[in-house]
Amino acid sequence: MSDQMRMDRGIWDARVGQSRHDLSTPSLLLDLDVFEVNLKKMAEHSKSTGIGLRPHAKSHKCPEVALRQIGAGALGVCAATIDEAEALWRAGVKGILITSEMVGRRKIERLLTLSKTDTEVMSVVDNLSHLDDLNQAGQAAGVTLNVLIDMDLGLKRTGVAGIETGMALAERICALPSLRLRGISAYSSLSAHVIGYVERRAHSFQSMEPAIELLSRMRRVGMPAEILTGGSTGTYNIDSDIEAMTELQAGSYIFMDVDYEMIGGKGGPSFNDFGFSLTVLATVISKSHAGFATVDAGFKAFATDRPFGPELKGRSGLKYHFGGDEHGILEIEDGDDDLRLGDRLEFIVPHCDPTVNLYDHLYCVRGDRIEAVWPICRGYN
Amino acid sequence: MSDQMRMDRGIWDARVGQSRHDLSTPSLLLDLDVFEVNLKKMAEHSKSTGIGLRPHAKSHKCPEVALRQIGAGALGVCAATIDEAEALWRAGVKGILITSEMVGRRKIERLLTLSKTDTEVMSVVDNLSHLDDLNQAGQAAGVTLNVLIDMDLGLKRTGVAGIETGMALAERICALPSLRLRGISAYSSLSAHVIGYVERRAHSFQSMEPAIELLSRMRRVGMPAEILTGGSTGTYNIDSDIEAMTELQAGSYIFMDVDYEMIGGKGGPSFNDFGFSLTVLATVISKSHAGFATVDAGFKAFATDRPFGPELKGRSGLKYHFGGDEHGILEIEDGDDDLRLGDRLEFIVPHCDPTVNLYDHLYCVRGDRIEAVWPICRGYN
Repeated sequence: MSDQMRMDRGIWDARVGQSRHDLSTPSLLLDLDVFEVNLKKMAEHSKSTGIGLRPHAKSHKCPEVALRQIGAGALGVCAATIDEAEALWRAGVKGILITSEMVGRRKIERLLTLSKTDTEVMSVVDNLSHLDDLNQAGQAAGVTLNVLIDMDLGLKRTGVAGIETGMALAERICALPSLRLRGISAYSSLSAHVIGYVERRAHSFQSMEPAIELLSRMRRVGMPAEILTGGSTGTYNIDSDIEAMTELQAGSYIFMDVDYEMIGGKGGPSFNDFGFSLTVLATVISKSHAGFATVDAGFKAFATDRPFGPELKGRSGLKYHFGGDEHGILEIEDGDDDLRLGDRLEFIVPHCDPTVNLYDHLYCVRGDRIEAVWPICRGYN
Repeated sequence: MSDQMRMDRGIWDARVGQSRHDLSTPSLLLDLDVFEVNLKKMAEHSKSTGIGLRPHAKSHKCPEVALRQIGAGALGVCAATIDEAEALWRAGVKGILITSEMVGRRKIERLLTLSKTDTEVMSVVDNLSHLDDLNQAGQAAGVTLNVLIDMDLGLKRTGVAGIETGMALAERICALPSLRLRGISAYSSLSAHVIGYVERRAHSFQSMEPAIELLSRMRRVGMPAEILTGGSTGTYNIDSDIEAMTELQAGSYIFMDVDYEMIGGKGGPSFNDFGFSLTVLATVISKSHAGFATVDAGFKAFATDRPFGPELKGRSGLKYHFGGDEHGILEIEDGDDDLRLGDRLEFIVPHCDPTVNLYDHLYCVRGDRIEAVWPICRGYN
């Protein structure tokens, strides 16, 4: 833990033992009872199916969550940025896989610093010239870098476009002295939110085919490719049936959000395998117009990347509309207007990852009591 | 400056004197030359038209910017949240007007703390029961709270709905010993982005009518109502022609964004009264597909509340599409695919306020040199 984090903790630990009613709003709450059930459920799925679990920390950016995931049996955690990886590393988290290409002089320097002290840190590659950059930097620093081939599964975002390109990259890695090939990272983002379990299963199985084929080719020629990582909260109980996959990267399961609720579960139209542990607490700050109420949570309190907003927790008949940077307007749909100025409401977030990224702390509550305050290491350095 | 801020400054000041090429990405850049022209231009507009300027700090959440705005002649700054107000106050900023209702026990406590040490802090009200809460708390603490009537101008978000309600509130304020009536806050958010200068002018003039009438009524009965504050970057040279308005709250002018570029100016179809000083620096991290390139800046690097994304600065033929939390996909429209892995690109942001809210620091550059690093006091406490 850095000095800065220690100081933060000092300030925020003073809230421990207070009630959620003592918090200013908006605040980000974590219901520990629900969180712990989610944590346990995914850990048991991993254990019972035999697939490894390296949950994605981009969802929480919170070392305290990562340490609990590892405590429950995870191999480590994934990170999407070098900033996340550094924050996790400073907190003592082991088994970090950075799932984005660390391109550019400064990111490569930072990756080397991590890899020097933790020889198990891994990152991904999809480009020959990048391999040369990494190898040169690794040689100069006397550090071996663990790499996985990043494979595109249809989004055209990052990753090699096909099996031949993947094989060419793998061969080159094996020829470079400061790189160590570990396997393949293949995240099918297009599968994660396919509506309907059957459709999602078919989508994920088909999407993963080129990655499985590449892995098989690599292994046939004797390359060290022990890892095939991918998957999401939406496909956790689908990808564990794909024999070649060695690890799951699911992240959102610990929190859940409106986005994942909509995808449909194995047993019915609602995906309720995991509970809503994450909410935003807001206050009714204006009540000037019949049929409407205004809360103190807008674009800066909820992610806005989806075409829908947050949902009231445990309460129907109220529809949230974004009302600008700091405001949300509640439309009272059922005519039952018993909202009062100062009322405090809890919202399930539209999309958990970019919502968490708007806050510095998770207020961990059990019932009304604040049991812990966990720092969120958001931002870019 | 708090101990925490001082420590932050120590760490980040080490970057001063480095080149922008030394920065990791994504990073938030402020072009000081352009920023200073924007600052001066609005200050001169305020001076030449005789309207006061209290710029909105919700756009920057940055005490260093606020101090420069005041240095250039502003009366103070507006804040949208108690967190912003506290950060500004800690940095020695005077003349703070909080433009959201401070409802709820914790926010009232925090408002009292500020008001105790700075008797000029102001906030807004739109509700009788809120007045009683504020007065009670003020009496208990021996503090007089400066308040403005918040008037709704059509959005039904916050503010009194009509002139009679406004007068009733004003009368009550005058009767309460711990409240001091200062005037009216009337922000016409619906006017700010009306396309076309003539249309925007007509919209703002019409929208402001009830606020002007309320002010006139208040003054006729001898109420102390010296302030009528409102306006935006979009209406800065419109509202200064409204005789009753005493202050402008424009905020975005120091940065500009794609959203404001679109509204049209007094002299032509593009609103170019202020320059683009704010950009996000990103890196091409993947180049696996013909016609596309991927940068390391997505939902967590740019505001997503508008139906459009960022725009490349100083470069055409490339269209940005959001590619998830950490990625953007550039579509190469002109076929001239000279982008290379590791290329660093600058983007004009879609909407400045919620974009700034995603970063902890503004890297202030003059040419390529980092001249200063200014902390952004985002987040909620």
